Amino acid sequence: MPRYKLTIEYDGTPFNGWQRQPDRPSVQAAVEAAILGFSGETVTIQAAGRTDSGVHALGQVVHFDLSKAWDPFRIREAMNYHLRPNPVAVVEAEAVPDTFEARFSALARHYEYRILNRRAPAVIERNHVWHLPMELDADAMHAAAQLILGTHDFTTFRAAECQAKSPVKTLDRFAVSRQLDHIIVTASARSFLHHQVRGMVGSLKMVGEGKWRPAQFRAALDAADRSRCGALAPPDGLYLVRADY
Amino acid sequence: MPRYKLTIEYDGTPFNGWQRQPDRPSVQAAVEAAILGFSGETVTIQAAGRTDSGVHALGQVVHFDLSKAWDPFRIREAMNYHLRPNPVAVVEAEAVPDTFEARFSALARHYEYRILNRRAPAVIERNHVWHLPMELDADAMHAAAQLILGTHDFTTFRAAECQAKSPVKTLDRFAVSRQLDHIIVTASARSFLHHQVRGMVGSLKMVGEGKWRPAQFRAALDAADRSRCGALAPPDGLYLVRADY
Repeated sequence: MPRYKLTIEYDGTPFNGWQRQPDRPSVQAAVEAAILGFSGETVTIQAAGRTDSGVHALGQVVHFDLSKAWDPFRIREAMNYHLRPNPVAVVEAEAVPDTFEARFSALARHYEYRILNRRAPAVIERNHVWHLPMELDADAMHAAAQLILGTHDFTTFRAAECQAKSPVKTLDRFAVSRQLDHIIVTASARSFLHHQVRGMVGSLKMVGEGKWRPAQFRAALDAADRSRCGALAPPDGLYLVRADY
Repeated sequence: MPRYKLTIEYDGTPFNGWQRQPDRPSVQAAVEAAILGFSGETVTIQAAGRTDSGVHALGQVVHFDLSKAWDPFRIREAMNYHLRPNPVAVVEAEAVPDTFEARFSALARHYEYRILNRRAPAVIERNHVWHLPMELDADAMHAAAQLILGTHDFTTFRAAECQAKSPVKTLDRFAVSRQLDHIIVTASARSFLHHQVRGMVGSLKMVGEGKWRPAQFRAALDAADRSRCGALAPPDGLYLVRADY
């Protein structure tokens, strides 16, 4: 069976997350319906990252098999036709070897978290940033982020319902920079625990507000205790940017 | 009477443009209602640019007078409270001398036009870019744009209903650059004719597609004939970025 890889952009706002659920809109169901729409085949797709409700993607990656071979250009065009009016688009479609697995072959996942840091609320970017009206110290946030790079037990930043076998992950990049009214947080790792990025960003906010020193952020990690995590950052500001293979 | 200047951001999508009209939502009416909401005073505001239906602003500027003096910080906070849930926000509020006129004191207006140039439709940026699926030559568009800088009769790019006394304007900056899948057009002038930016961008698209050489773009200007204008670019991609005083 020919296997296909899709790179997908979506606005997570109207969806109950990535994963298919009965009676609730999900990105997975929208994509599978579009595949059925052009090919007549019912498939179950696998994704690089199962994003939460309200989380967006610029470059989610999925794979699936079809019994018939298709030109990847036609797959992209036909899927974008069938995906309307859902805010989901296929940016790229490729034929891949049947050893390719969107979830298990990924060598790195890259997320971005966007904070709008000004008094006025978000309007053009409504649902697409975390609005924090108090001025944050982005340099202190970046300094704190550097203290947790590398391989650690990330239990502090893990959701209660996380299904990963181990809480030990390797954080390769975690950086904070200010761009005028915006603060951009980037996080890269081979894989993340459920809610890890939102937990880390929610905790970095404590540093940005001056409530925690950077060393306290590191101490929260070392405690390996979920009660030490800052309040979870909302999904609105989170984007799955890319997965590398 | 104390005079106030506001810098306003808005998502133009749900509005029938800037200008107040009976029975249709406008940005002007939303802002005037918020002023009434916090101050109890009914005012008519003046704006730097009366944007069309669907056009956005990052930095629209308005002024108005109140009989009572207010702390500008309180004006901004109170207006952002009263503006909800409209996608309009007051980014800055200042007290200004009563010689300040948002429309007539402006020395320059800066617009940006955003094109998404890829096969896949816009989803996260839906209503906020012009989606053009065929690859455009941004360098040719930039070269053409440089040919119309300076003082000219801009009749070709003027709306039939334009109320300006003269079609002669001075275009100070008109630049095109590619940023990955996006093409960004920036335009600066003391003032613009009605539909001028959208007409110029719609005509630049002809150059980007290779249907016009840059010299033909200049010839369209020189003809001073509205029938020579390319199809108007849609409002979705247009942003009033800033006005200088």
